[in-house]
Formats: sequence, structure tokens, C-alpha cells
Amino acid sequence: MRLSKYFWKTLREISSDAEMESHKLLLKAGFIQQVTSGIFNYTPIGWKAISKIKEVIFQEMNLAGAFEVNLPVNQPIDLWEKSGRSKTFVPPLASFEDRRGNEMVIAPTHEETATFLAASYLDSYRDLPFIIYHIQTKFRDETRPRAGLLRVREFEMKDAYSFDKDEEGLDDSYRTMIKTYENIFRRCGLDVIKVEADSGPIGGKDSSEFISIASSGEDTIFSCDSCDYAANSEKAEFFKLDADKLSGNEDIKDIETPNITTIKGLSKFLNLSKDKIIKTVVYKFSKGLISVSIRGDLDINETKLRNYLNEDPKPATKKDLENHGLIEGYLSARNIKISSILDDSIDIDSSYVTGSNKENYHLKNVIPKRDLNYDEIIDVSLAQKGFNCIRCKGFLNEKRGIEVGHVFKLGTGYSEKLGAYFIDQKGNSLPSVMGCYGIGVGRLLAAVIEARHDKKGIIFPKTIAPFQIYLINLNNESQEVLDKSNYLYENLKKLNYDVLFDDRNETPGVKLNDSDLLGIPLRLLVSKRTLSEQSVEFKPRDAEQSKLISIEEIFQEVDRFYNSIDT
Amino acid sequence: MRLSKYFWKTLREISSDAEMESHKLLLKAGFIQQVTSGIFNYTPIGWKAISKIKEVIFQEMNLAGAFEVNLPVNQPIDLWEKSGRSKTFVPPLASFEDRRGNEMVIAPTHEETATFLAASYLDSYRDLPFIIYHIQTKFRDETRPRAGLLRVREFEMKDAYSFDKDEEGLDDSYRTMIKTYENIFRRCGLDVIKVEADSGPIGGKDSSEFISIASSGEDTIFSCDSCDYAANSEKAEFFKLDADKLSGNEDIKDIETPNITTIKGLSKFLNLSKDKIIKTVVYKFSKGLISVSIRGDLDINETKLRNYLNEDPKPATKKDLENHGLIEGYLSARNIKISSILDDSIDIDSSYVTGSNKENYHLKNVIPKRDLNYDEIIDVSLAQKGFNCIRCKGFLNEKRGIEVGHVFKLGTGYSEKLGAYFIDQKGNSLPSVMGCYGIGVGRLLAAVIEARHDKKGIIFPKTIAPFQIYLINLNNESQEVLDKSNYLYENLKKLNYDVLFDDRNETPGVKLNDSDLLGIPLRLLVSKRTLSEQSVEFKPRDAEQSKLISIEEIFQEVDRFYNSIDT
Repeated sequence: MRLSKYFWKTLREISSDAEMESHKLLLKAGFIQQVTSGIFNYTPIGWKAISKIKEVIFQEMNLAGAFEVNLPVNQPIDLWEKSGRSKTFVPPLASFEDRRGNEMVIAPTHEETATFLAASYLDSYRDLPFIIYHIQTKFRDETRPRAGLLRVREFEMKDAYSFDKDEEGLDDSYRTMIKTYENIFRRCGLDVIKVEADSGPIGGKDSSEFISIASSGEDTIFSCDSCDYAANSEKAEFFKLDADKLSGNEDIKDIETPNITTIKGLSKFLNLSKDKIIKTVVYKFSKGLISVSIRGDLDINETKLRNYLNEDPKPATKKDLENHGLIEGYLSARNIKISSILDDSIDIDSSYVTGSNKENYHLKNVIPKRDLNYDEIIDVSLAQKGFNCIRCKGFLNEKRGIEVGHVFKLGTGYSEKLGAYFIDQKGNSLPSVMGCYGIGVGRLLAAVIEARHDKKGIIFPKTIAPFQIYLINLNNESQEVLDKSNYLYENLKKLNYDVLFDDRNETPGVKLNDSDLLGIPLRLLVSKRTLSEQSVEFKPRDAEQSKLISIEEIFQEVDRFYNSIDT
Repeated sequence: MRLSKYFWKTLREISSDAEMESHKLLLKAGFIQQVTSGIFNYTPIGWKAISKIKEVIFQEMNLAGAFEVNLPVNQPIDLWEKSGRSKTFVPPLASFEDRRGNEMVIAPTHEETATFLAASYLDSYRDLPFIIYHIQTKFRDETRPRAGLLRVREFEMKDAYSFDKDEEGLDDSYRTMIKTYENIFRRCGLDVIKVEADSGPIGGKDSSEFISIASSGEDTIFSCDSCDYAANSEKAEFFKLDADKLSGNEDIKDIETPNITTIKGLSKFLNLSKDKIIKTVVYKFSKGLISVSIRGDLDINETKLRNYLNEDPKPATKKDLENHGLIEGYLSARNIKISSILDDSIDIDSSYVTGSNKENYHLKNVIPKRDLNYDEIIDVSLAQKGFNCIRCKGFLNEKRGIEVGHVFKLGTGYSEKLGAYFIDQKGNSLPSVMGCYGIGVGRLLAAVIEARHDKKGIIFPKTIAPFQIYLINLNNESQEVLDKSNYLYENLKKLNYDVLFDDRNETPGVKLNDSDLLGIPLRLLVSKRTLSEQSVEFKPRDAEQSKLISIEEIFQEVDRFYNSIDT
């Protein structure tokens, strides 16, 4: 492609709300144009990069034996009512009433239609297993789209759905897809960590995320320094070291603690380590208030709490508390009339200090089993760097990253609700066991750029670069430079290289900068200087130094570069 | 692909409202599943056929130098308000309010976003011309989706937009796209006629449709038997033969015509040919009533009328007429107080019989110029078979067909409204001159099936068949048949043929029927009988007879079949 004829321009001035590097670079390099918040036009070069990523995805999905289908963007709400997600999906479904008065959903994901299609095909166990997938537009009405292609409202997602006859089958399909995802991300030039994840509004049992490690990432993950345990912060479990137990059976006593309303303050005032104190927080849910108590050295993980209660927790207001005779700063699960949860960090047989539910007083010698009200003991605590691994007690490292893929074991929920049953060998009708697997295509492009850039611009891996070679004629007043660069362009095309030929009437500075910005893996440069040595300048985008290659050898050298296996 | 492992089933029972052959065959052959009215899931084999069509489109569009982009499905209404189409698009836009209270449109077409993207790129005449395109999901809320993939609500459309600096440039781009479309349809195995068309809600100056001739088609087209003039019935013009003029200057006279309220009746009663009578019809528009008068031997083309008035014409009710002192059956444009149009078939200097606007009377000696009220003389007449060609006076043939592509010269309307201006060589800022070009991908598949099927099923052209070879092992109790068919399957795959291997435990009848139904261009069949002659049965789908080819020669024979150029 001759750049002088191409639909491409860099953007000199970018909006100040572009903070992430990938956002800035996608705009500067002319890959995208914002149409409205979280919705973008892709330019030819932007879409070319996307198409390369899609090609990798298609190849790997097909290799895995998955079948490409196509499921619609606009869907009748009754499928979502059947699955039970019409009111509960987060963010809320975007929908409209069609001309016949039927409510239509603009799909944020395709479990419902995938199951509906599978149900029409599925008769017998002989039809199982199978995986179907498509790359299709989704719409999720995020309240705060941001960071360019990382948090959008409309996006193309590769979503796959596996159907198996039992849990073992699902385990196989799940492993196959994990392997496929690892291949896809590796081929896209990303280092990813697979972490245990929260399954969120998709639902289901197990769930893993693939995280591309990037300091700019919005996700926090913890990984063990001794074993392969890794999980995102929403899901991460950890080994809760027993505090030195304070046993005993002494009676509860008031302690006067005037104006001391924090764990930190209380710990100092009593000269008592935080793990001997119980912290209680009260939340408001649609069913009423609920108190959550946790060891004082730990914090509450509200995602775990939401998953347990199937609802977003909101902090109770002062007024809410007063209505139940509770006092901020002095809360505890002692003699309370509201629901109560204990985090499993609390040893119910040990002795703690807690709030008293009276102003200016705490209680000591509180033995939870004897003295507190609670309905459940569960894990609602937030992991932190340096905590101990739940599996091997090694130490947890904290990293930041970008989620690029998500896989879920769904089980039989959708199959049951949408009728994807099969007859097994004994003649029983059983729901198929499902998994689902998603990759956001635009997000993957952004993650690649976050992981692979320098001050000058993008550094594309060979697999998904929009062009393979950026060819520059540096001095276009020289006929010899024009002739030789044209010669190179035509012959590289004949060798099936996808060449972006910068034949514009621009200064050398502009051409070199644009080349670095675009991040095409290989730059070839023809100038009067290189031709004085019968040569072409050869520079991989990620190399520090360029080298001169003679014109006779340049095609071989390009072949060598592109045949090497590194991305 | 081994059919025993494939996600594919034929449908034995299809819904009775499937009337068109393509609809029946797409359902029977398991290509699609209806999700709701006008919205479909595509199965793996259905989507494979679509992907083949898309590949042809991509190849031809790229050859034409068009750039693939991607424009979003969900769009802010303000772009549609700028273009002036937010309220006027037909069918009405589907839209929803997003979580921030902004109205979002689910795009039925992409002129607005294409122009918005072009505007961000366009600075100078040096940036022109260019053509951008994408294949993207559209939603049009048709009130009566029907005929399977022929009239849907959600569909993928290849839409392209050309931008030029002047009308001559547009003419070039338009010609390029017409050539590209002809290539695409030819490669998909369709005979198409390019006809002049109405530009409908897209707007613009010139417009042509590509019609695949099919007796089942819902479009009527007229084509000249002597020259290359062709147009759809909504747009078709024709040469209006002068009636034998009745000249003269006699005074208007009442004729008593009791209970004679039709042109046919009047012609008989007066023994006067219909072309000497003026027929008047009154329509209701938002601005009031309008009378349309036409020569009595012709009919009114309501599409032409709608285009002239920018609004759908509705017949005036009896009550509407009475309110204006008009009487059904005796209408004319004589002394009327409402707007009035004459069709240009009427010679305003000749003498006619018309209604009198009084019950039981007509008028004779009516010379329109002298005696009728009219605001405009335009062409609003409906072409019919046997009428004379507007260009060469040859005769018009009538054919039925299916629209598979539509191209429009848009001019500068969108550029002006959405700011796609450029600076010309003299320093003037000018709006770019646009064209747009659309192909519905699913509709194209359906049109191919309408044009290419027999009683047994589909007859795919080689280019877009979902598989290239349907291989059958007819007697799967025979080890030799299993071995030889496996041998063929593995070796055909090595030769890069896309083979659907019917290795199911099904009867010969089922396998042969499914093969015919699917319409794969070549069937190879291995049976005990063929092996007794060391042979394989070779049968192109469109051949009457099969032939036996020896196993040694079969690969060459397949190559020969696939290397021949016919589709």
C-alpha cells in the first residue's frame, strides 16, 4: 500500500482525557475515532490490526474443533426472561420496543441464543460434545466508558459455548479452551497469567481470567511466589494465619473507649494487636441490614459479599443504623436483631475485643460462639500483598494487569432454562453441561499496545501487525531513491509481503516518527546515503540499532526476519 | 469434516409459512434457525456459506481499492439529527435511551458514521478520492419480515461509501463499484440485471439496483427488448405514445353518465378510447388533499408520487372528498380548490372527457390548459409490459427478480450536513461528493438459492459452496468401503479440498438425499459396487448422470473439476 494513496492520518492533538498509553497511541496512530462515549469508528489501519487478531482467533478456535456460527445482536426479551437475566444483568440490558410492541434486547453476551441454537440441534448423547463460537458485536451500557478500547460500550467479542454430557466432559472442553486461549495470547505477543476469577453476571461455578500483566492495568491480581496459584483481587483467597489465640472463658466486660471509633485507634488505646479485635461493618440490602464481622487486621471484600448475597452491597447510613439501635464506630454482632455474617478469619472459640453497640464503650472477653449473633461463617476477606497462599502458604505477590479473556464453567443452568437437553445412553433426558469462553477483540488490541510500546509508539508483534514492512523513501527528490524504493516495494509485494510504502512528500523526520508510532515490526529505509553503499537500512522496530543490508541480500534478510519464530 | 462429528442436522418438518424455495431449503438444509420474526441464528454450515460470500466480497472490494473500516451498530441520534433522517427513515429507526439519557440508534445503514469518519480524515483534494466499506450488522424494523433471509430485520450488509472531489469523480467511483458488483454477483453464480431504481430513504440522485432474475422474486422489473434500458417498476419510465389528438376549441359540455364511475365503463358508454379520457385520483397527504390526473389508459405509480411529495400517499376517503365538494367516480381537476398534478401523458392542448365533480355527469371538450386547475405536470405513471422504451421506443419486457445490490449517487447532502469538506486546488472549502453501495449478505445467499435449486435441493456454485466435496461411504458395514473412503477423505484434505465426509450410520437413501439437499458441487461416492470396479462414483450436483472414475485417477479428476472456470 502506498501511503500517499492510503486512508490514514496520524492525530497530532489528542484529547486530554486519554490517559492510558494504548488509548493515546490508538488515537495518535489514527486507528480509531470516537463516535460517542465508549463507541468507536475503526479506520482502515485500525481495522486491519483487528482483522489480524481475528484471524489468529479463528485459526486457533478452528484448530480446537470449535464451529463458527452467528447469533444475532438484537434478541427477543423472552429468551432473557427464560434465563432469568432480563432484570439482573449488570450493566442493565439495553432494550427497545419494536414496531409490534415486543421488547428487544441488544445483546451484551450470547448464552441465551447459543443455548437456543444448541437446543434445536441436540437430541442424543451422540451429538455431544461440541463447541460453537462467533465473533459478534455486543453492547454493554457501562456508566463510565474510558481508556479507549479497554472499557467500551460496543465491542466485538469472540464468545464460545461448549456443550457436554457431564462434568468430566466440561472439564475437558474447559481445558481445551484454556489451551486455545494460551495459544491465542502467545501468538498476539502477550504474556498472560491465568487467574481464578469471579464469574459475575454470567454466573456459573468455576471461572478463570487471563490477565496481561501491565502496570497500567485496572485489575489487581495476586499470584503465589511458590506455587501456581493466582487469582484476581475480587476472588483471591488466602491462608488466614491463626492469631495467637486468646482463649479463656471470662465474662464479657465493658471497656470505656471515649471517641475511639477505629480499629487502629482501639489497637493503640488498648495496646492490643488488631487481630484480637473484631471489626463489624453494616450493609444495606434489599432484604434489610446485614452486619459483617471480620478480624480487625483484615478488610472486607465486597465482591465476595455481593456474590454471596447476589446483590451489590451498599453501606448502611447513620440513620439506618440508628433505626436498629446501632452506633457507628461501636458496632458489633452482640445482641443484634439484624442478619449477621462472620468472616472465617474469626475463631469463634477465641476471645476478642468488639464494639458494644453503645457509644464510647467496647467489650472485651467476647467469645463469638458464646456472645455474638451470626447466621453464617464464610470467606468475605480481601487478599493483600504478602498474605499467605491458600494452597501452599507461600507469599502472595500483587500485580496489575488487563483482563484479555474470561472462561466460565456454567453447568446446566442455561440448558435447563432454555431446553438444551439430550437423551443419554440409558434413555434419560438430561440437560447438557455448558461452559463459555470470551475474548474482547478491541480490548485485546489495546492490551497488546499497553504491553508493547515505548516512548515513540507501538511495537507490534509480527502476527498481528497491520502491515509487515514499513518502507521509506527518505529523499524523494532523488530519482535513484525513488527508483530503488519502488523496486523494493514491487518486489516485496511479489513475495507476498504486506508493505506500507511511505512515498509521501514528507520530511525524513515525519516519516521516521510515523514509522515508530505505527510500530510495524520491520522498517526498510532507502536514502541517498544507503544507496551510496548499494544498501538499504534494515531496522526491526524493537531493535536498538539499524543495519545496512545490500540490495542483493535484502529479500533474503526480510525472509529470515519473518521466518524466525519469535512474535 | 466428518459429518458424524459435525454440528449439522436437516430439518424434516418445516413451518408452513415458509413459502419461498430459498426459505424452505435454508430451513430444511439446516442453515438457519429463526430466533424471532426476521432474526436468525446461523448454524455452522449456514455461516460457512455466508463466509464464502463475504470472502468474495472482500476480495472484489479490495481489488477495487476500497478500504475496509468498521463503523458501529449503536450510534448517537445526534448524527441522525444532523443528517435529517432521525424522524424520516423508513422503516422508523429502532432506538433506545442509554443510561445517561442519550438516545441511541441501532443503525439501519451507515451513511452518517461513514461521513463522520471521512470528515475526520479529509483535509485536501489530495486526500480524494477514496472508498471505505465494511460488512456490518444492520437492523431495520420491517413490519412484515418474511421469506426467510430475503426480508429480515437484522442482517449483515456490505456497505461502501465513495468520496470524490466532483461529480466526474463520483461517476468514476460509481462505475468502479458497478463493475465490482457485477464481478461479485457473477462469482456467486448469479445472472443479474442492473436496473434504474428509486433511491428511497437513502436519498440522492441516481440509483441502480442489481436484480437476480427469479420468477419467485418480489420485485418487478422492465427491460427493453432493443436497448439496454432496464428499471424496476417503481422507477420505470416509458415513452408515452401520443394519443390521436382531439384538437378543437369547442366549449365544455356536460354529458349525462348515470352510475358510470369507471374509466372502463365510460369508455364503453361513450364508445371512446381510454386515452381520450382523463382519470383523476385524490390522495391525502399531511398538507392536505392532492388530485392526480392521468390519461385514462394508464395507471398511477404511487412510488413516483411519494418521491415527488416526500411522503407516502394515502387514498382520500369518501368523507375527505365530500368535505371538498368532490364525488367519487366523477372526479376531475376542473374548478377544484385542492392541489393538482397532471401526469405528463396528458397533452394539455388536446380535448378530453373528464369527471365533472357532479354526480352522474362527466364533461366533454375539456382542454386541460384552458379548463383544468393544475400546479405541476410530472411523470407519475406506471410502466407495463409491452409499453415503449423511453430511450429507443422498443418494447418493455416484464420480469420478476430479487434485489441483491443497490448503488446510489448521493451527491453532497451528507458531506454538507456532517462536515466532510476539503480544500480544493484554489483554496476553496467544498463538500465531498458521495456515493453509497450496498449488498445484503444473507439476502444474496437466499437469492443464489432461489436461482439455483431443483426439486431435490440447493445447487451451489463452486465459489460459495460451504464445502467443495460431499464424500459418501455408502455401505459402512464393509471394511473395504470404510478404508477406501477414509483414504479418499484424508488425501483430499491433503490436497486442500474442503470435504464433508458423510460417515454417519445412515441409510444410503438418507445420505444421497442429504447430499442433494445441501447442494455441494461435487459428490463422490464409495460403495461395494464402485469398489468392485476399483472406482468411485463422481457426480457434479448439476449433472444428470454420475460416472465411475478409477481410484488412481480420482484426484486428477477432482482437480480438473475444480480448475474449470465455470461457477
